Amino acid sequence: MSKKRILSGMQPSGLLHLGNYFGALKNWVSLQDEYECFYFIADWHSLTTLYENPGQIKQFTREVAIDWLAAGLDPEKCTLFVQSRIPEHTELHLILSMIVPVSWLERNPTYKEKQQEVKNVDMSSYGFLGYPVLQTADIVLYNAHYVPVGIDQAPHLELSREIVRRFQHFYKKKVLIEPEAKISEVPKLNGIDGRKMSKSYNNAIYLADSEKEITKKIRAMLTDPQRLRREDPGDPDVCNLYPFHKLFSSEEKQAYVNENCRTAGIGCGDCKALLAESLLAGMRPLMERRQQLAAKPKEVDEILHEGTAKARKVAQATMHKVKEAMKLI
Amino acid sequence: MSKKRILSGMQPSGLLHLGNYFGALKNWVSLQDEYECFYFIADWHSLTTLYENPGQIKQFTREVAIDWLAAGLDPEKCTLFVQSRIPEHTELHLILSMIVPVSWLERNPTYKEKQQEVKNVDMSSYGFLGYPVLQTADIVLYNAHYVPVGIDQAPHLELSREIVRRFQHFYKKKVLIEPEAKISEVPKLNGIDGRKMSKSYNNAIYLADSEKEITKKIRAMLTDPQRLRREDPGDPDVCNLYPFHKLFSSEEKQAYVNENCRTAGIGCGDCKALLAESLLAGMRPLMERRQQLAAKPKEVDEILHEGTAKARKVAQATMHKVKEAMKLI
Repeated sequence: MSKKRILSGMQPSGLLHLGNYFGALKNWVSLQDEYECFYFIADWHSLTTLYENPGQIKQFTREVAIDWLAAGLDPEKCTLFVQSRIPEHTELHLILSMIVPVSWLERNPTYKEKQQEVKNVDMSSYGFLGYPVLQTADIVLYNAHYVPVGIDQAPHLELSREIVRRFQHFYKKKVLIEPEAKISEVPKLNGIDGRKMSKSYNNAIYLADSEKEITKKIRAMLTDPQRLRREDPGDPDVCNLYPFHKLFSSEEKQAYVNENCRTAGIGCGDCKALLAESLLAGMRPLMERRQQLAAKPKEVDEILHEGTAKARKVAQATMHKVKEAMKLI
Repeated sequence: MSKKRILSGMQPSGLLHLGNYFGALKNWVSLQDEYECFYFIADWHSLTTLYENPGQIKQFTREVAIDWLAAGLDPEKCTLFVQSRIPEHTELHLILSMIVPVSWLERNPTYKEKQQEVKNVDMSSYGFLGYPVLQTADIVLYNAHYVPVGIDQAPHLELSREIVRRFQHFYKKKVLIEPEAKISEVPKLNGIDGRKMSKSYNNAIYLADSEKEITKKIRAMLTDPQRLRREDPGDPDVCNLYPFHKLFSSEEKQAYVNENCRTAGIGCGDCKALLAESLLAGMRPLMERRQQLAAKPKEVDEILHEGTAKARKVAQATMHKVKEAMKLI
């Protein structure tokens, strides 16, 4: 097996939306031919925010798997698994926790930012402080060479690399691989209110939405805020809609919309109707696959079950090497 | 089974000495008839101090088990197991880490003290900060009612009780038991140099020492520092030896030593010879059992193996209840 290995995960904290799709999932799908990909449902990580109400994690574990498969992840090509069902994650997390200085974690900008940002949940838990340790365990258990990340997440991976180096330094054996960031360019896609598309802002278009719901959400989308009347010319460069046209509409349609927005040749309602048409055409195959998969939950569960069994063997082999290197066995 | 349950553990960071024996192990032995006792080898906890050189943990796991059995722990009466072989410890540790505020751990006096005290190891690891979380997982996995502790350790148990209450508060189910401290009086026993008996001070008398080694160590013991010459009277109340007489010598012998020390009727050498005689007589049965056990390491390993299998069933049942309460399954 000379393919390099990729690992990435998503938290089952909600249905996946277009932001998740274009921000990560579409990229995951395109990676599965060239790399040996391990993709996992990061349910332990969901507890960092959902610890007060974890009941939804179970449901979203299946829903996220359905979203993945609908988007084109192929269990014949990549390994799809559930983090919490592989005890080696918590075991390696504990071991690594012993060699990571608290100060490395306190310096993590995300830890500080979330204390400020997240208002409805207390984000000062010991578990959240240590999420980079768990993340490192997640990655190195599978000997991943690359982790696909957005440019803003590169520092997290640097911490994982530091932890791996510290492990090698103490135990004098190169049993763990220093993972590298695989930075991919991601289109900027906002939610219907113009803020970053996010479940928590209630502004997202979900892969599980019906055509009717999507059409309704597109109709409600914020456009160029300067274009107050139909006869005002608009500016696609500041319009919330136009990035969606770029993703879903043909170049001809993009040119038509661009020109007629600037000249008030079409109104925002027209533009939205054109987008709805393109977006639905683009998403329809995925949406149809999603419906079919949602009707066969047992099959989806079975795919996760098989992927988890396959992943566990890899995790167990790594743990064996880790314990040997530390002379624990 | 109406017996209340007891849980306690020891780190396999060295051979056990008389301080460990009289400070804890003897008490453990006496508890095994009245309670259902779970005693574990806390090898994960050893990593908090031995992470740079964990190779000795494996060896001491067996040695500590031999010390336990020699001291009279009876695998027919109590369950003896190894923490790291039961993955539920790391799993519950991770789950509890999500509900424990970092500030609860930063307030832990032991965490602060060790930063100052321990000079040769960096004790500022994430894992050491969180050791009370792991300790809580250790206790509640076995639904322990009581944890035998010295009076100075009572605050740690209070933190475990707080964590359990927080768990019940979030998940509205009383699946975990709030453990209570079972405080036992412990004789103050110093090492041969007069400081607290401790492996790290190199001043300990080990259960595994030979009669010759013990005699030699007793001869080297610090006595009343004011008694410089044979003819000076001594003071048993400040002498390092006398607490050992209290534990090992008959009341007659104690009275004899006490009186003749104060009148310079006997010298420190005589006193030491008398102690060696009592101490060896008292320890001989244990020492002989220890030799027999040390010759049958496979049997000792098998006892740990069976105890671990038995303990794991209890731990798995608790984890099932924990996950149900959190609606993770």
